[in-house]
Amino acid sequence: MTDVTVSLGANKYGKAENRVVRIYRDTPRHEIVDLNVTSQLRGQAFSDSFLTGDNSLIVATDTQKNTAFAFAKEVGIPSPEEYLLALGEHFVSEFDWVEGGLWQAEQYEWERITAGGRPHDHSFVRRGQATRLAAVQKADGATHVIGGIRDLTVLKSSGSAFTGFPRDKYTTLVETDDRIMATSVTGRWRFLPDAVAAGFDYNALYTEVVDVMLEVFASVHSLALQQTLFAMGKAVIEARPEIAEVRFAMPNKHHFVYDLSPFGLDNPNEVFYAADRPYGLIEGTIARDGAAPAPEAWLDIPQFV
Amino acid sequence: MTDVTVSLGANKYGKAENRVVRIYRDTPRHEIVDLNVTSQLRGQAFSDSFLTGDNSLIVATDTQKNTAFAFAKEVGIPSPEEYLLALGEHFVSEFDWVEGGLWQAEQYEWERITAGGRPHDHSFVRRGQATRLAAVQKADGATHVIGGIRDLTVLKSSGSAFTGFPRDKYTTLVETDDRIMATSVTGRWRFLPDAVAAGFDYNALYTEVVDVMLEVFASVHSLALQQTLFAMGKAVIEARPEIAEVRFAMPNKHHFVYDLSPFGLDNPNEVFYAADRPYGLIEGTIARDGAAPAPEAWLDIPQFV
Amino acid sequence: MTDVTVSLGANKYGKAENRVVRIYRDTPRHEIVDLNVTSQLRGQAFSDSFLTGDNSLIVATDTQKNTAFAFAKEVGIPSPEEYLLALGEHFVSEFDWVEGGLWQAEQYEWERITAGGRPHDHSFVRRGQATRLAAVQKADGATHVIGGIRDLTVLKSSGSAFTGFPRDKYTTLVETDDRIMATSVTGRWRFLPDAVAAGFDYNALYTEVVDVMLEVFASVHSLALQQTLFAMGKAVIEARPEIAEVRFAMPNKHHFVYDLSPFGLDNPNEVFYAADRPYGLIEGTIARDGAAPAPEAWLDIPQFV
Amino acid sequence: MTDVTVSLGANKYGKAENRVVRIYRDTPRHEIVDLNVTSQLRGQAFSDSFLTGDNSLIVATDTQKNTAFAFAKEVGIPSPEEYLLALGEHFVSEFDWVEGGLWQAEQYEWERITAGGRPHDHSFVRRGQATRLAAVQKADGATHVIGGIRDLTVLKSSGSAFTGFPRDKYTTLVETDDRIMATSVTGRWRFLPDAVAAGFDYNALYTEVVDVMLEVFASVHSLALQQTLFAMGKAVIEARPEIAEVRFAMPNKHHFVYDLSPFGLDNPNEVFYAADRPYGLIEGTIARDGAAPAPEAWLDIPQFV
Repeated sequence: MTDVTVSLGANKYGKAENRVVRIYRDTPRHEIVDLNVTSQLRGQAFSDSFLTGDNSLIVATDTQKNTAFAFAKEVGIPSPEEYLLALGEHFVSEFDWVEGGLWQAEQYEWERITAGGRPHDHSFVRRGQATRLAAVQKADGATHVIGGIRDLTVLKSSGSAFTGFPRDKYTTLVETDDRIMATSVTGRWRFLPDAVAAGFDYNALYTEVVDVMLEVFASVHSLALQQTLFAMGKAVIEARPEIAEVRFAMPNKHHFVYDLSPFGLDNPNEVFYAADRPYGLIEGTIARDGAAPAPEAWLDIPQFV
Repeated sequence: MTDVTVSLGANKYGKAENRVVRIYRDTPRHEIVDLNVTSQLRGQAFSDSFLTGDNSLIVATDTQKNTAFAFAKEVGIPSPEEYLLALGEHFVSEFDWVEGGLWQAEQYEWERITAGGRPHDHSFVRRGQATRLAAVQKADGATHVIGGIRDLTVLKSSGSAFTGFPRDKYTTLVETDDRIMATSVTGRWRFLPDAVAAGFDYNALYTEVVDVMLEVFASVHSLALQQTLFAMGKAVIEARPEIAEVRFAMPNKHHFVYDLSPFGLDNPNEVFYAADRPYGLIEGTIARDGAAPAPEAWLDIPQFV
Repeated sequence: MTDVTVSLGANKYGKAENRVVRIYRDTPRHEIVDLNVTSQLRGQAFSDSFLTGDNSLIVATDTQKNTAFAFAKEVGIPSPEEYLLALGEHFVSEFDWVEGGLWQAEQYEWERITAGGRPHDHSFVRRGQATRLAAVQKADGATHVIGGIRDLTVLKSSGSAFTGFPRDKYTTLVETDDRIMATSVTGRWRFLPDAVAAGFDYNALYTEVVDVMLEVFASVHSLALQQTLFAMGKAVIEARPEIAEVRFAMPNKHHFVYDLSPFGLDNPNEVFYAADRPYGLIEGTIARDGAAPAPEAWLDIPQFV
Repeated sequence: MTDVTVSLGANKYGKAENRVVRIYRDTPRHEIVDLNVTSQLRGQAFSDSFLTGDNSLIVATDTQKNTAFAFAKEVGIPSPEEYLLALGEHFVSEFDWVEGGLWQAEQYEWERITAGGRPHDHSFVRRGQATRLAAVQKADGATHVIGGIRDLTVLKSSGSAFTGFPRDKYTTLVETDDRIMATSVTGRWRFLPDAVAAGFDYNALYTEVVDVMLEVFASVHSLALQQTLFAMGKAVIEARPEIAEVRFAMPNKHHFVYDLSPFGLDNPNEVFYAADRPYGLIEGTIARDGAAPAPEAWLDIPQFV
């Protein structure tokens, strides 16, 4: 073993899951932005901490946390993407040995409670299961912005088939031309650098992208979840010129027709057993033709899920 | 140890978390009911299985599962409460040694996806975080019905104070007359036996109860989460004559004002840190005056949470 | 609606899930006790906070938290039960309007890391999945102590059968005289008041009870999970004279023989599919004959799970 | 929008989380292997399903599931790595249009229950929190094997410091030369292709790697979690010549000294509050010098966590 030597490879560090809640209360009608923020830094200068425990260039993770909260006040959070852009820019400019990093946020959405027949000024109820995602990647001198969503759970009780697949000795699946199709969409979309440079309304885009995804899921007569996935990505890119590519992970949440025949009952796709595991898992990327690929934008971001 | 003898006390058994999904597709406009159903039986006759492994009177948990799915077809699921009533009645009438039991359901809510400008016929998106609860208890020859909700997460960014509490040597909390108040409501409401006997629209009641809870949460200027809890229960009982009592568990999900003063920044209730643990936990029962109490209705149902 | 009046019923409040970690470091060989502590108070005096928002007698949940941490130093944590006893006694004696309450703890267990061939002085690895439970109930002037465990997951690959059950029109289950039986035990045991008054080694008792439960699970040829449950409770009570009664919840975590016959393969109980949901759920109480029952000891404690 | 065209990029599909339990029962002393298996395929031929819903080359995810269970019998599971190697080889050889894929498993560990003073033949208790990981990647004609672990939770109550870090306007952290250091290790190690080709005892290697990680965590006087991480990776590579590189994600699970001074109590690192969020997150790669890098081996595998 005496000749074995090792080297430090890719690394980063920071503070994860800072639960930053920002209230805008300049008028009686408050606004709320509710984020879960992770900040991580990369740089050659951080090697000494790994190799020898020398922390003289380690921007403490506690400092990253403080900065995340301070920026919620100093910069504000017009959108998670713009807030993360400011945060990332701060670290690479404040500390010249920080070469890049990854700043991520989840956003939990709230809607106003209706009271006395109208939306309340400062009372909110958590909306939906879906969580909005945002990420800013700084690598190799470039800045990339990625939006996304997680746990957008959808189901169609008709308009879905699965037939024509090959059969081998391990194939027992029966073809079906009418089934429940259900999935919980995780999607991420990378913005074109030009769009990021020009700026745009990230919040309005998010709302539109969700609407487009839902509309396509509903409208496409699906021959395979793969087909639905591609159609959703295509529609998203067609809808918004700011988007370079979309990555989706879609579990196929199986709903099995329950066999009621032992009890003398028909079951024409009326009673289903919703299974937990195993589930299908379909993942795919849809890219705008002509947009330059940017694999470094996705560094350390889950490929699909 | 030779003189030690033991006896079997309270017990029940059954099948938990049957994921029953019922699609109504008699017209092109489908309806979906999505439940998680648990069925459990009680009876003196089941002792032999515990004591000697004699299963001759054990209605198999697999049989309880089959019945739950079959009833989704035979009886249908007009509401979780009515479906559970039918299920419970079946077991005590089919097997004369079944003395009672507890049948519970969670309901996950879906709303139609908007496509082409109108609600789609058979495509749905999961709504909200909150889960509807229902339970039917059969004990001592009586039948009780309990509705409820879990994970209704609400927040008010103003209109909440906490002052005037006693101070001892372990008290460091500073009084506040303006704070974020946030909670995730778990509530259960027991219906009056007469209302159950007469029947009513359980789904409409649920919708109204949720609306009332939200409206009161928003409207009450809260001096304590206890006060809000009681006001919500009072309003629910006032709104619906079918309800005998309400039980609430409300975690006080703390949002702490982040100290930005080291960075030279004011923070007039604008930037908060949302903490996970510990959390306050306030629990209380609100009962209609004159309604007969029914502790046996709550047998094996979590007291609050 | 004008005539509707309501009253406050059962209630309590406090601080939940205080993550108290106590290190004993009086010698180089440290000890660690890792708890999740919940303190809740009851008393007629707390009604005013619910009814009018008057907090003048509300011992703040923050004060309860401070006390829980301070007592980890002042009293120490010889066992979770003894620590909770001290905590509960403090609140009822310090504030004469506190009539009772419920103090609960989960304990996470750690074992020493082996380094250089021997147990390390101050480095630990989390052991096991199971979580130890403890609760102190003060109600009606009496004090009750309850120990327990959660998530003790066990499996036997033979020595389990399920036959002889009745069949109705919804029964399709096939009898089996050899199956996998797996469960995740939640158990709680109430100590006799005399034993609590006399005191004993709660930690040694816990270790012995776990060993007894495992040994019985392994040894009993099981005709039903019910039978195993009862045998485990009986053995626990026989083993320890301090225990008045035991309550168990045991999910039957189904492992189904996978049908390999379409592929021309035998499967003599060798390849199983472990299902998530639904699962059987068997719950039962085993009581020492002659021990006085104490239903109030279990107030607000989950009946089984 | 009419000119927008899109293309399908990276994708894969399959069946996730097949819960395969294999019992070896050739002798009365049974063995258990408990896996959670995911199989996913890649290939240009699958594009048609995405683009047009043509499934004529789609090996159904149900077929992948059947194969995973059948191989537990036909091939057996000597180790998760060897089982996944066989599974992957099957798909690329059986279907010539399958170009590659990713096969992953989690393994849950069981130990024998002690009964009658000796290890029981067929009764087991789930051991530990940690989950073993394994993955086989087939890409570009090469096969890669990766082992790993998740949720190995460790803590040291002394022997950890954090000092000497830079201070800016957002820095408030106080230096400490004695703190609790706790983390929950996720690690993955890639095996050298030559070692995979030659074969070796994957189970013995796993056990040794865990022991080495624990020993180094305990022994290193830590100046930063980064330093501990690197030392652990270095030791793993030094211990086993089969390993080319190690990737670690280590959350810094903060334990804060609770301020007892308001209560007149000292707290010399005895009472801590264990925080949930935020947490530090340190990630790094340690590579054997001279081993050829293989970025394609990590395709779609989480970079660190």
